[in-house]
Amino acid sequence: MTTDLGPETLTAAVIDSFRNTPDPRLKAVLESLTRHLHGFVREVSPSIEEWEAAINFLTATGQKCDDVRQEFILLSDVLGVSMLVETINDEETPDATDSTVLGPFHMVESPERTLGENISAESEGDVCLVRGRIVSVTGEPVPGARIDVWQANTKGFYDVQQPGIQSIGNGRGLFTADENGEFFFRSVVPSYYPIPTDGPVGALLEATSRHPYRPAHIHFIVAAPGFKELTTHIFVGGSEYIDSDAVFAVKQSLVKPFVFNTDPQEAALFGVASPFVEGTIDIVLHPEIHPHTPSHETTKEIVR
Amino acid sequence: MTTDLGPETLTAAVIDSFRNTPDPRLKAVLESLTRHLHGFVREVSPSIEEWEAAINFLTATGQKCDDVRQEFILLSDVLGVSMLVETINDEETPDATDSTVLGPFHMVESPERTLGENISAESEGDVCLVRGRIVSVTGEPVPGARIDVWQANTKGFYDVQQPGIQSIGNGRGLFTADENGEFFFRSVVPSYYPIPTDGPVGALLEATSRHPYRPAHIHFIVAAPGFKELTTHIFVGGSEYIDSDAVFAVKQSLVKPFVFNTDPQEAALFGVASPFVEGTIDIVLHPEIHPHTPSHETTKEIVR
Repeated sequence: MTTDLGPETLTAAVIDSFRNTPDPRLKAVLESLTRHLHGFVREVSPSIEEWEAAINFLTATGQKCDDVRQEFILLSDVLGVSMLVETINDEETPDATDSTVLGPFHMVESPERTLGENISAESEGDVCLVRGRIVSVTGEPVPGARIDVWQANTKGFYDVQQPGIQSIGNGRGLFTADENGEFFFRSVVPSYYPIPTDGPVGALLEATSRHPYRPAHIHFIVAAPGFKELTTHIFVGGSEYIDSDAVFAVKQSLVKPFVFNTDPQEAALFGVASPFVEGTIDIVLHPEIHPHTPSHETTKEIVR
Repeated sequence: MTTDLGPETLTAAVIDSFRNTPDPRLKAVLESLTRHLHGFVREVSPSIEEWEAAINFLTATGQKCDDVRQEFILLSDVLGVSMLVETINDEETPDATDSTVLGPFHMVESPERTLGENISAESEGDVCLVRGRIVSVTGEPVPGARIDVWQANTKGFYDVQQPGIQSIGNGRGLFTADENGEFFFRSVVPSYYPIPTDGPVGALLEATSRHPYRPAHIHFIVAAPGFKELTTHIFVGGSEYIDSDAVFAVKQSLVKPFVFNTDPQEAALFGVASPFVEGTIDIVLHPEIHPHTPSHETTKEIVR
């Protein structure tokens, strides 16, 4: 750096500053970040005031986060980054059930529940039954698979958004598939809902005339030894906003009808009144592809 | 969004989501951001764990900020973004004194001081005199220019970093140039110093084997009606790290010798013992180019 750095040489100097990074993956990520970030800055040529506004926006986004709020995930979501990362990772496993975004509400542990239990006992609304089967890509059942589910209530709120109204754990459950890989639980049909708009991300949506709504869905994380963990949703067919999800997370394969089951025998089997609303999703897991590499772990370690 | 979004169509969908943004500047910035951010994600193809690490890193960066700490500016600094923005904006005014980064320590108001006053009365170290002249690009003095200065002490710490050791305002001063555009004040020669390393940015530097040091410098913001405000430093010639500033902010034109002045008459004039160390920087201001445009203001307004 014996001569002055202009816009072009500056980018090279920043990339060069990472030359001694021990972890090659971290080095490659930072080099790519520097090129793309500087490319963005050169393209928009921000004023100092705009740069300050960006700093303030990012700071406010971090400061909005707490134990039950993750505003940076929300930002990643509304910019389509979360879905892009999911989609890229999903391309490894075309035969498995499609994945979709984690979302910002997986912040508390779901309570362990037994098959058939009502995850939304505190919520108003007609009882619905959600059921399905966990199988491998070759069609074999995956007994003992762990199924972590969470959802909004019929007003569109998650437990963590309504302290004093919902207990933590309402709308959530951690189930274990039976010997046939089957699972079922009772709940209420969730509502579409706005993502939280009282923070910087809400201000961004407002400034861009974008609506904050997500179509109705139930979140799933399905895990079993030897299989790649799957993060996905089941979307309620026909829900409002199914064609304009604020976080770009709808995949047609995940949209399922929630329909009346009029079979009194099945009602008796599941312990609900007949007829009842039923949503079904069979989930196909792909064998584990690669364990986490050491380089991923190192990248993680810089966050303390 | 009637069909599924793949990595390519997703980017187009996110850009399209901004189509109704009323402010054209904000719309253009977000479109560019989306393209570059998605380009980065596609290029590095992050694992879910890496995406989570990035979310955690950004969140921790925001949460490290408080009234006297701005970790996002620090991140912008070590990635060369701050200097890139400065350099781009500086290209408008090639005849003026070079600008450089604001840095993260301009967080408290500098106390109003009279010319000649010692800004570092609480600091150990030999007294030095800093002097110069504010002129326009056509060489006329700018009487009454406002000169905001701040610096580290001889141990390399700013006031806000040492509560209980330094009072807020030590090492800072807000001066008004005299009728000849001249200014002078007493201080101590600042030390090179490490940027704060106890946060996420420090962890990033450590993980990339980068040193955190900045060469010794005094910050300036110079403002006068009708002129473009100038944010810059005077760097202490010969300081360690002058060739490897952790934030890429050195411009050769801003490196000035801090040398002994052996003229007893000048010592008497400035009220210091003879000989004394002296640093001199003449600052050339460019006429104001454009007032802030309404679009910049709108961009700013989304941060609340």
